[in-house]
Amino acid sequence: MPSTVRGLEDVVVGATRLSRVDGEAGRLVIGGFPIEELAPAASYEEVLFLLWHDRLPSRSDLAGLREEMAGLRTLSDGTLAALRAAAGARLDPMDALRIGVSTLPLANPELARVELQREPALANRARALAIVAALPVLVAAYHRLCHGREPIAADSRLGHAASFLWLLGGARAHPARVRALETYLNTAIDHGMNASTFAARVIVSTRSDLVSAVTGAVGALKGPLHGGAPGPALDMVVEVRARSRASGRSLDDVAEEWVRTALRDGGRIMGFGHRVYRVRDPRADVLGEALETLAASVGADGILSDGRTVELATLRVLHEHKPGRRIDTNVEFYTALLLHSLGLPPSLFSPTFAVARAGGWTAHLLEQIEEDRLIRPSVAYRGGADRRFVPLERRSEAGAAA
Amino acid sequence: MPSTVRGLEDVVVGATRLSRVDGEAGRLVIGGFPIEELAPAASYEEVLFLLWHDRLPSRSDLAGLREEMAGLRTLSDGTLAALRAAAGARLDPMDALRIGVSTLPLANPELARVELQREPALANRARALAIVAALPVLVAAYHRLCHGREPIAADSRLGHAASFLWLLGGARAHPARVRALETYLNTAIDHGMNASTFAARVIVSTRSDLVSAVTGAVGALKGPLHGGAPGPALDMVVEVRARSRASGRSLDDVAEEWVRTALRDGGRIMGFGHRVYRVRDPRADVLGEALETLAASVGADGILSDGRTVELATLRVLHEHKPGRRIDTNVEFYTALLLHSLGLPPSLFSPTFAVARAGGWTAHLLEQIEEDRLIRPSVAYRGGADRRFVPLERRSEAGAAA
Repeated sequence: MPSTVRGLEDVVVGATRLSRVDGEAGRLVIGGFPIEELAPAASYEEVLFLLWHDRLPSRSDLAGLREEMAGLRTLSDGTLAALRAAAGARLDPMDALRIGVSTLPLANPELARVELQREPALANRARALAIVAALPVLVAAYHRLCHGREPIAADSRLGHAASFLWLLGGARAHPARVRALETYLNTAIDHGMNASTFAARVIVSTRSDLVSAVTGAVGALKGPLHGGAPGPALDMVVEVRARSRASGRSLDDVAEEWVRTALRDGGRIMGFGHRVYRVRDPRADVLGEALETLAASVGADGILSDGRTVELATLRVLHEHKPGRRIDTNVEFYTALLLHSLGLPPSLFSPTFAVARAGGWTAHLLEQIEEDRLIRPSVAYRGGADRRFVPLERRSEAGAAA
Repeated sequence: MPSTVRGLEDVVVGATRLSRVDGEAGRLVIGGFPIEELAPAASYEEVLFLLWHDRLPSRSDLAGLREEMAGLRTLSDGTLAALRAAAGARLDPMDALRIGVSTLPLANPELARVELQREPALANRARALAIVAALPVLVAAYHRLCHGREPIAADSRLGHAASFLWLLGGARAHPARVRALETYLNTAIDHGMNASTFAARVIVSTRSDLVSAVTGAVGALKGPLHGGAPGPALDMVVEVRARSRASGRSLDDVAEEWVRTALRDGGRIMGFGHRVYRVRDPRADVLGEALETLAASVGADGILSDGRTVELATLRVLHEHKPGRRIDTNVEFYTALLLHSLGLPPSLFSPTFAVARAGGWTAHLLEQIEEDRLIRPSVAYRGGADRRFVPLERRSEAGAAA
């Protein structure tokens, strides 16, 4: 019997051609491209095509993909009714997204089937595309419903990122904003065998369907250990900034004090450190540059320079606190600054992460369907043995324990 | 770097006190009790209590549990509306169940939260109970809606198994039928680290919630490699019986021919063989005996003796086909005969499996929450390297591949 590996850390469950995470070197490769090469240059649709087909699309490939996606940005009455009910109950946006994804087959029961050929069939890709295209529509519709506004119809001329901003706000977004969102979506599209992707692969490995798997993935992404940290990372920057303004003390001073207090109280500093990366997360720099470009085009409220000051102060205190430990800013810190600069409230951070990761999820699912192998580990038993059943009427109040 | 373990076969992910599956010896232990000791004697509520508390309930424990569950057998308007929409779209009952579970927080958003104390908090158990209690209500409501009948209200005097039969049929079930269903639910309540349980644990390991995890588990159970085989196992018996009656040939003859043809055509014989059990699945015998008891009380349509004839013929041909291979009847074969004898159509087999497994899922989730460790494996990379991005306008139609 092999030894137990709690959390499966460093257990290699298979092979993927989708992304390579090198935590020691601080490198991330998506479909063969270094993330810093791909993310700021490509559209989300191009990266999606790359993941699914292992090559960049030609102009006609891309036009076809965009046209197909434009036709998929509607929700069925049943899905909309479920979102309305969720808004009425004030559910967390990730709960609403899980419900929304789960109800997508109401529009077409075929969505919840799966083809079992060794090569992922065209039909599976069409299903995957319907899910990827629907995610931002669900997120935006729920966001509007929660704020007492009706969902609006998609504009078929827009690409994935631009459409998401349109569906949220009902206005054409500045190209610099679209570019910044696109860069974020690309940085977050895939990241090896993360927990939500793994959950999705386990689900589809039973020969279940893509909708069931993505529904499970959304549920996993809801967890703060996976998708839930950008909000708190932003809170820190915003709070430090407010305290600095109120007290007239420097940002650096206030940030240092904030971090020291949090460490003394045993709290975790969100936005720093990562289970996989031992050095700087390469996505942090891509997002930092995207933020600079955005600020140069449309201005910003100084969140980037303030964020950098807070970041440096935090790193200084963290390294002083644990001198030998390698810890650096993670992707969540810059994600928070970027999404905030795009006008998205923290309630949209995790749902927007899901919008991005949908491309990776579906690519992994198509890979898993091709592999067609059940994922089922073993578990050690540490419970009782050889207990004998005592019928209820002979069981004492105190003596029911075996 | 450790070697890759595809499908995680024999990788031990942790320890559980809930069940022990010994596939070599053909033994299954639930909460310290051999399955053959526990399943035919205990009520589902007793086994549920055993899994959650590691002891059998006292009479007052059990009365409290039953009362609490009786108060949880209602669905919110939002959930009912989603089930109606699903019935209108003729969704698979497992898709409807995934939607139904996902919408449970519409009744109470607290359901979708989780307590992170090391000891599973009372609040988590209350959430788990709400899910376990709701599952048969969802399954029965959807079944009725699909057949043009309105869901009916629960009878608060009934236990879990009796209530399920009441909600399905609107009539009090004979105690022998309740006992047979109870025995089935107990045999299926938990089974080590199966794929749906594992998916649920991965989801909650991110500190996500019980509803998200059980929604994912339902999606995994939908897959025919996990929950989907009792239907086809019954199909075989029914088809062999029909051919025998039509042709006047013996059941044994027809079964032998059926199996030989299926093997020749490369088909899999459903109801035989299991990834874990190398010998007879102990649950098969428990269910066989439950079926005998049921037939003695309320009669049966001869499906048990016909099933046994088909079983023996199948095993004879399988052993002749692969002499060295250890293969035996699995639990799905007798599950199919038992549920059929209870009047459940095959469309209810997988949902009823989910009703049973909900007890194990929630017990595993409470265990996982206590453990509080992210499950995140690694994956090897087999894709391209060092590709350089070519902007779309400089990409040729044919030369987009890297």
